[in-house]
Formats: sequence, C-alpha cells, structure tokens
Amino acid sequence: MKYSIIVGQSGGPTAAINASLLGLVKTSLNDPEVEHVYGALNGIDGLLKGQIIDFKDEDLTELEKLKTTPSSALGSVRFKLSDYQTDTSVYEKLCHLFMILNIKMFFYIGGNDSMDTCCKIASYLMKINFPCQVIGIPKTIDNDLVETDHTPGYGSAIKYIATTISEIKADISAYQKGKVTFVEIMGRDAGWLTAGSKLASLNGNGPDLIYLPEGSFSLKMFLEKVENIYAKKGHVLVALSEGLKDQEGRYLLTYRSFNSNDDFGHLQLGGVGEVLAEKVNQVLKLPIRSIELNIPQRCAIHAGSLTDLDEAYECGKWAFLYAKEGYTNQMVIMKRISSFPYQIEYQLVSLEKVANLVKKVPLDYLNKTFDDVTEQYLDYALPLIKGEVKINYENGLPKFVNLKKKIISFNKN
Amino acid sequence: MKYSIIVGQSGGPTAAINASLLGLVKTSLNDPEVEHVYGALNGIDGLLKGQIIDFKDEDLTELEKLKTTPSSALGSVRFKLSDYQTDTSVYEKLCHLFMILNIKMFFYIGGNDSMDTCCKIASYLMKINFPCQVIGIPKTIDNDLVETDHTPGYGSAIKYIATTISEIKADISAYQKGKVTFVEIMGRDAGWLTAGSKLASLNGNGPDLIYLPEGSFSLKMFLEKVENIYAKKGHVLVALSEGLKDQEGRYLLTYRSFNSNDDFGHLQLGGVGEVLAEKVNQVLKLPIRSIELNIPQRCAIHAGSLTDLDEAYECGKWAFLYAKEGYTNQMVIMKRISSFPYQIEYQLVSLEKVANLVKKVPLDYLNKTFDDVTEQYLDYALPLIKGEVKINYENGLPKFVNLKKKIISFNKN
Repeated sequence: MKYSIIVGQSGGPTAAINASLLGLVKTSLNDPEVEHVYGALNGIDGLLKGQIIDFKDEDLTELEKLKTTPSSALGSVRFKLSDYQTDTSVYEKLCHLFMILNIKMFFYIGGNDSMDTCCKIASYLMKINFPCQVIGIPKTIDNDLVETDHTPGYGSAIKYIATTISEIKADISAYQKGKVTFVEIMGRDAGWLTAGSKLASLNGNGPDLIYLPEGSFSLKMFLEKVENIYAKKGHVLVALSEGLKDQEGRYLLTYRSFNSNDDFGHLQLGGVGEVLAEKVNQVLKLPIRSIELNIPQRCAIHAGSLTDLDEAYECGKWAFLYAKEGYTNQMVIMKRISSFPYQIEYQLVSLEKVANLVKKVPLDYLNKTFDDVTEQYLDYALPLIKGEVKINYENGLPKFVNLKKKIISFNKN
Repeated sequence: MKYSIIVGQSGGPTAAINASLLGLVKTSLNDPEVEHVYGALNGIDGLLKGQIIDFKDEDLTELEKLKTTPSSALGSVRFKLSDYQTDTSVYEKLCHLFMILNIKMFFYIGGNDSMDTCCKIASYLMKINFPCQVIGIPKTIDNDLVETDHTPGYGSAIKYIATTISEIKADISAYQKGKVTFVEIMGRDAGWLTAGSKLASLNGNGPDLIYLPEGSFSLKMFLEKVENIYAKKGHVLVALSEGLKDQEGRYLLTYRSFNSNDDFGHLQLGGVGEVLAEKVNQVLKLPIRSIELNIPQRCAIHAGSLTDLDEAYECGKWAFLYAKEGYTNQMVIMKRISSFPYQIEYQLVSLEKVANLVKKVPLDYLNKTFDDVTEQYLDYALPLIKGEVKINYENGLPKFVNLKKKIISFNKN
C-alpha cells in the first residue's frame, strides 16, 4: 500500500542542511511505495499551519542545486514544543494532518533543540500507537550533538573558518609592527568551531593562541602570552570562542554593560573579541583589531567541504532507508570506522540519547595551558574538510536553488 | 649594458597585489638585459634599511604561487615620505642604494598614499638627473584611484563581498520573522566596495538597501524604509559603507563615545552598522544583527576573481614593458575599451595626476533616494568579477607562497 512522507528543517541554517534534504527527497521520490514526498515550510510551524509543499511539483534538475545551496531551503523555525503531558492539542493537530495526508514517516533535520521536538513527537505517536515513524537527521555547525562522530555542517564551517584564518594570517603578517588581531568564532558552550581554526596551522597559517570555552581562561596568563608573542613576531593572531568564560565561570562577555537574550532565553553572545582587545590595548598599549566571523560561518557554501556535503546527503538518504526498515524515534549518526583512511558508517541512535544534550570538546583535544589545540584534534578534524565544493556560478556569483514552494491544498478539517 | 631593477609593495594588502608582483618579476627575469630583480621587504622601509632580496634566489615554481597568495608577499608598510624640499636625507640614501646595486628602474605597487611616495621619488630623481625610472603599479580594493577604469584588487574584493552577501541573504531568509541585518563594508570616503554588494541581486540575493558615503543619508527616511520592508518580508538586509555620513557631513560613527585614529591620523572606522542597528532596535523595536565584513574583504583569495588576478598580473608586466620604453614618473592604468565584450588596454598616466586623489562613485551609479545602486554600476562592475580562481589546496586549505626571503649582502657605505 502506498504512503506519503514529510520532512521539515529547523534551527540555525548551515551550508549542508539542504544536502541532507536532497538525499532524503531523491531517495524517497525514487521509491515505488512512496506516493508523495511533502516538505513543511518553516519546520513544525508550517506543519501546524498547513504550509506544505509537494516535491513532485518541483523541477528535478532545479532540486539538484539543493546540494550547494546554503541555509534552509524549506525555511526554518525556532519552536519549543510543549510537553504532551501538559498539552496535547498540538500533537492532536499533527496526527490529524498525518492522517489526512496518509503520512507514515516524519523526518526532521536539525540540532539538539530540534531533536527534542522530534523526540516528543515520536514518544507521543508511540504512546497512542499512531502509525507514523519519526527519524531525526542531524545538522549543526556547532558539532555539539552527542552520539555521532560529528555533525553535517561542521566540516564546511571549519573549512571556511580555517580558510579565513589562513587569509587573515597572511594579511596581518604583512607589517613588521602589526596588531593583536582577535578572531571571534561561534560556540556558546562548546569550542568545536574555534578548534577548527587550528587546521590552518597545517599549511603554516594557524593562530598563535586558541581559546575554547572548555578551557580555563586566565586574563593574566593571556596578557603575558600576547606580550611575549608580539615582542617576538610583531603581530599576534588570537582565535577565541564567543562563549569564553573566566575562571569563575562567568562569560567574559558579561563584562560589557549591554547584553540581550535570544528566543530561548540564552544570553546573546558576540563581542568577546572586543572585550579582550580593549584589555590588551589598555594594559599592554598594543594596537588591536577584532574580527567577528559572524553568520558567514554557517552559510559560506563557497568555501564548503565536499566531504561534509556528501555525508550530509548520505544522512538524508539513510534516514529514509532506516525508516523503510521500520525504525522510529531514532536519529541517524555517523560512526567513524577509521581516520586514515577515513571511513564512516551511518547508524541509528535513540532520540532520547541525543535531545538537549551538548557534546563538548574532550580535554585531550586541548593543550595543558588551554591556549592551543592538540594533534589529536587535527587527526579528528582533517578528514572532515577534504574536497572542495563545485558550486553553480552565474554572473560570477553562486546561484542557489529556486523552489516554487507551491502550497498544496487539502481539507484541514 | 646590463642593469638591475627593484620592486616594493605598500599599503593595505589585497588578494591581487602578489599577482602584479609575479607579472613584473616573471617578465623582467626573462629579459636578457636585466641582471638582478630585487625585492624590497616592507616597501620603502626595507629599501632604506637594506632589507632586499634577489628573486634569482627564489624557486621559480614556488614563485608561481604568488598569483593565488593574498596579502603582500614582500611585506608592506605605511610610510609617509617627507618632501625633498624640506629634507633630502632619505632621497640621498635611496640614490646611494640605487647606485651601488646598479638599479635603473624602481617599481612600487600600492594605492594613493603609495603613489604619493612614488611621485616624490620620481620627481627628486628627475630633478637631480639620476638615471633611474619610476613606475607605479596600482592596487587597492577601494577602487578609489583616479585615471584608471578600476584598480587591481577591487574585482576580487567585490566578488567576495557579493558572494558573502548572497549567502547571508539565503541565511536570513530562512525565518518567517527574522532580523534587520546590517552588513558593514569597507570604504572611508568612496562607496565602491559597498556598491559591489548589489551584484548579488543579479542572482536574486541582493541587499534590500545600500548606502554609500556619496549619498545623502537621512535617518528618518532610513527608518521608514526599514519598517516598510520588514512589514512586507519579515527581514531586511542593509549593506552600508563604514564611512557613511549624515546630512550634516558627520560620520555616523562619531555618534559612538570611543573612537581612535590610525597611523595617518584618519579616524578609525568600523562600527557604523552597530550604530544604525541600535537605532532600529530602539525606535522600531525590531530584532537586529550587525555583521562587519572586516579584513577578509581584502585578503579572501578563495573567493577571488580570475579576471582581477589576470589584470593584476598584466599591470605588473606592462609596468616593466613601459619602463623598457623609457617612461618614468608614470602609473600603469587600465582603460576600458568596451564592457560587452569586456576589453581593457594598459596605458600610462603621470603620477602627479594620481597621487593622493580619491575617485568617488559617480552619482549616476546611485539611485535618486540614495539607498540603492543603478544598472549602470552593474554594467561597470559585472565584468570585473568574472571567473573563479583555482587556488592551491593542501590539507583541504589554501596553500600560499613560501618565499625564502634571503637578504642580499652588499656594502651599504
């Protein structure tokens, strides 16, 4: 008997999330048992509002461009799903929709918050014995999902970061007496992205100092190191995580007067580079520059990793293949078989084991003085940035997918 | 009779300045009359200190990597040369060096400040009838040199800017209710770089509003526009120059409490995006994000323009060829013969006509309300970003030139 499936994207955009979408959509469209492959616009939000498209309405050649289109082609959302113990109304609405559209599989591509949504839906459906499977597909540049070796999106993000760090290093080395340059990199509680800056050292262009939230940060030691390096080289390149904390566990950023919170009540980060730059200028009287890599970190497909996009595609593909085998309430993970040669296997893990948890950078990836990253990290990360992405160029610039996004009409009542 | 030549690089790094160096070095090394091709480290500073290398000591295959290495391979300097009317000591030192090393041609790759240096040296040498020719080779991402159609470095900078704008646009469009996002672009008095953001509109990913220093900026009109666009789209992308001024001619940036000056006494810019973002947040109560593209604009070779690098190479080559014909006190310029098909001729212009002058964006490149850029600009700029650069990748990252930089030994007295 034929059935339909639906997919949504959620959380912060990445360079690879659309590659996962393509992997899932292409594989399922080719399956003779699948009648419709639906996409929910803006994740769970569009699902609840009936903003749903049918991938059969899209042009297949155009769809191929998903692989090299950054951000979330279906649109994203930040949505905290209520517990079904306290309120089942949203869940009932979903079941109703799944019934009307004959949806037997629900796929959600996202990070830890999204896996929480996934997990709640899966639990509810199992509880009421509703015949729809739920599979999560990981994505986050932050690489902070537990259970999986790494996350799709991370490889492209650190390839961009290390490429940019290399170029900045070349730039700041041009002057005999240069500046102390800070490059502030995303990462609230985990320093995965900042660690990636170290890859630039493989070609001789790495930062002089690297600070992750996992390390213990001493302002005194930091200033001493900066002073010494500057005296020797005439310039210093510091890579640091936005979520860097002092030895008392306070975000260095809270030294600023004005701070704000995001939709989830998290402190909005960004600016820690400037905080430290001012300290260096005040105490050491050295010239400074602060660079925030900002959102290009999560969408710079033009410097993306081919390995990352290929893996993201595979995660989408395997999500469907595993669902076909009957699995539900699971997330696709990548298990590393070996680093040299690099080999990955796609497996599953229960969503409960993933949702809301954060994987930090293990301490053996940090050096003893917490101002650098070790060889072990390089062995881990190098395979993830191999290969360059061939993007579609038009007018000398990247050309992204252009989906029709025709909303299907159906009787919602 | 055999002679030697010398070249230096000066001013802010670009993605293309080393391509010009390669064009000059390769062409002159192949000339049977040329005995030594010298390079001065850190421009005029290394010249005066005798920090000079001989390109014959470098590996030719390695030298080829200059074409795809950003920044200044010889090192750069910011040096304001005194007038020879007031102090000839520096000039005498230079003449002495040129005599010892049998240097008959001096080439300097740089922007307006560097062309001032070039011009002073050329004038002095002519005044005392010293047999050494001086040719300037243009470079600056700012595109603000007069007389030339555009400057080497500009094409790569705007290709990077427009690529990044495209990706940011894709990113911020993922949410139904997003932010008002500001992208701050370099440009003190001329908006050439910010204008480049408009190229992203050719593929449907352009900014909603573009503000250049050449336009008249009204905060009231700006806030109205932002409010209207946000109401319609749910997000706004604003590209703006760091040197944006209000209707009274004050840098918007001076609204900040803390400001500092650079080595030339210019106000250090950067932060105008945040100034306007705060206004939008205070007045319109809309969520905001401010992104400063910062120094990757001048060194992001990985998103460089092949046309730009090829032209930069040609400028270096023609500098030598014109010097061979006997010209001095000149700068190489590019004259546009036609845009479609794109065709450039390499010519010369007197250094006096170039030094210290700034070419602003002509008003017919700005729309009437000074918040967008016109089709005429696109016709001008599109040819400059055509073609992608094939850079050397090692370990998944760009690998730059590694010069030996062996300082020559000679009797300076």
